[in-house]
Amino acid sequence: MDAFITLLHGAGGQESHDLIESLIVKKVPPLLRYALEGHGLDILDDGSFIKVGDSYIVFTSDSYTVKPVFYPGGNIGELAASGVLNDLVMMGAKPVAFLDNIIVEEGFPVEDLEKIIDSLVKVLKENNVSLIGGDFKVMPKGSLDKIVISGFGIGVSQGAPIIDHVRPGDVIVVTNSIAEHGAAILASQLGIDAENLSLKSDSKPLVKTVLPVIEKYRPHIHAARDPTRGGVSAILNEWVRGREVSIIVDESKIPIREDVRTFLEMLGIDPLTVASEGVAVLSVSREVGDEVVGALKSMGENPQVIGEVVIPEEPSYKGKVIGFTEVGGKRIIRGEALNLPRIC
Amino acid sequence: MDAFITLLHGAGGQESHDLIESLIVKKVPPLLRYALEGHGLDILDDGSFIKVGDSYIVFTSDSYTVKPVFYPGGNIGELAASGVLNDLVMMGAKPVAFLDNIIVEEGFPVEDLEKIIDSLVKVLKENNVSLIGGDFKVMPKGSLDKIVISGFGIGVSQGAPIIDHVRPGDVIVVTNSIAEHGAAILASQLGIDAENLSLKSDSKPLVKTVLPVIEKYRPHIHAARDPTRGGVSAILNEWVRGREVSIIVDESKIPIREDVRTFLEMLGIDPLTVASEGVAVLSVSREVGDEVVGALKSMGENPQVIGEVVIPEEPSYKGKVIGFTEVGGKRIIRGEALNLPRIC
Repeated sequence: MDAFITLLHGAGGQESHDLIESLIVKKVPPLLRYALEGHGLDILDDGSFIKVGDSYIVFTSDSYTVKPVFYPGGNIGELAASGVLNDLVMMGAKPVAFLDNIIVEEGFPVEDLEKIIDSLVKVLKENNVSLIGGDFKVMPKGSLDKIVISGFGIGVSQGAPIIDHVRPGDVIVVTNSIAEHGAAILASQLGIDAENLSLKSDSKPLVKTVLPVIEKYRPHIHAARDPTRGGVSAILNEWVRGREVSIIVDESKIPIREDVRTFLEMLGIDPLTVASEGVAVLSVSREVGDEVVGALKSMGENPQVIGEVVIPEEPSYKGKVIGFTEVGGKRIIRGEALNLPRIC
Repeated sequence: MDAFITLLHGAGGQESHDLIESLIVKKVPPLLRYALEGHGLDILDDGSFIKVGDSYIVFTSDSYTVKPVFYPGGNIGELAASGVLNDLVMMGAKPVAFLDNIIVEEGFPVEDLEKIIDSLVKVLKENNVSLIGGDFKVMPKGSLDKIVISGFGIGVSQGAPIIDHVRPGDVIVVTNSIAEHGAAILASQLGIDAENLSLKSDSKPLVKTVLPVIEKYRPHIHAARDPTRGGVSAILNEWVRGREVSIIVDESKIPIREDVRTFLEMLGIDPLTVASEGVAVLSVSREVGDEVVGALKSMGENPQVIGEVVIPEEPSYKGKVIGFTEVGGKRIIRGEALNLPRIC
């Protein structure tokens, strides 16, 4: 193992996965990877859950370190709330309560902190989620670059939460244009005028648009994940890794705004590796694929079927994600994350 | 309000309280300060809870920024696990599950990270608590001083959780010698050889020693809190603030090791303002006071009754904590936190 932590360990791809597996999961006895008839580290999904009586209580926690703290389309407070709520939605749970842990650098403007907290609370209010606790710490000047927020979300699932397990015959649905958040942050970090390029984070809670569709088609939704760090490619790879199946992606179907595509192409970055913060990727039974797409459209999303889950004829494709282009090109889409720090 | 965040805003005393009240609590509509028949920001206790069927599910979250990361008597991983479990215990809940959010600086030694996670997992294992999720992020070199950990704890309470509300006639019990953690960290930060002075953090989970006593005497325990940031004085002040009651402390009864007292006296620091990480302060019906002390002793703790809750004859004492010394001295013990960053 490497002797020092690198940025790639935190980028959400294979290296993150391996580090977490070896330093954390492996150290925990299997019986302590879940609690109260639920699932936790044994599934490594968007969230974990316990069962209390007939209720499934779902939990998720995420830390936000995004830089800049205010960026085109949002700020770290709005991102922390949306991100945590979306992880609950991806488990099929209705978000109920939130706890916020805020660590701020000494000298941070109170006015900015107030804006950040107001944005966070606004997202919670709009989605009828309670703020029931948290923590507030200050670190001396120079020991933290501005602010980080950890959010802890609690949700309730009507029916068993969605544990990602794609099945042959599923279609892969992406609910909206991808890579918007990552492109906007990247431009900001590079000092490029993101708004002038019409780059803007897509960060938004999916509670009102995607959750109702997941709830309606729950038995047919075999996997659901929001493509944040690592992007769509990391998720699709996690879904097939070590399994007999493969995911075939029609690259021409991937929804992406032209401005975002152009900007990322200019930098030689594959949009499939770039974070979204208001998008879901669903693996859905083929027989309800069109209905799910229709339902998402009626909620104001802009969904696309981008591929399917197959048992590949070619044995070397097992456990892999394969991309086809319109002109007949073919490539293996790897789960290599874009090595971009503080994207979320 | 101040224009910039200061270290005092994060020190756990009156300033922390005021900032959280004005920037967070006040912004959340009263109906969204709790969820599912439970309590949250409406009580500002060690934890919050929801009710599911007949079960009380208790939550708490804390961020740890302690410096140094390894200190005499422990490290940030052990501290994060013990601290979160203790907050659940202070609500009268049995800890069931834990989520860890780790943010590390690029270049942090993997070996050190492994030691930290091993310590954290050890505390969980010893107390039969599952690790069911978390997050791992890396920040670029220079943007974070080494590592911070946010822990989220989930517990189940047999019977209504303890919402702090001291009553006249209660006695105040401290379960063990105070100020050990804060003194050890302070010495380390000052570059003093803490171990040579026999200063050592008292950090430990109270699941096996204090929880059984709280469970046994639950209806008689009117308040329970672990005196971390802000120390015993911050807690006692929170318990009486704005109320008609006052807490009278016999300062000669406060359990404190001679080495700790000497070290803090040398620096002119009141031990009541200094953090412990393995101690509980309980407000207990007088009629079971001796029994509770006996039960704690039989669990290996070293408890002391240090004071009582009264309705003061002197009106200006209302809402205040008053300390009496052996030689007849008297003082108001204020909830002013020691302005010491990164103590926990």
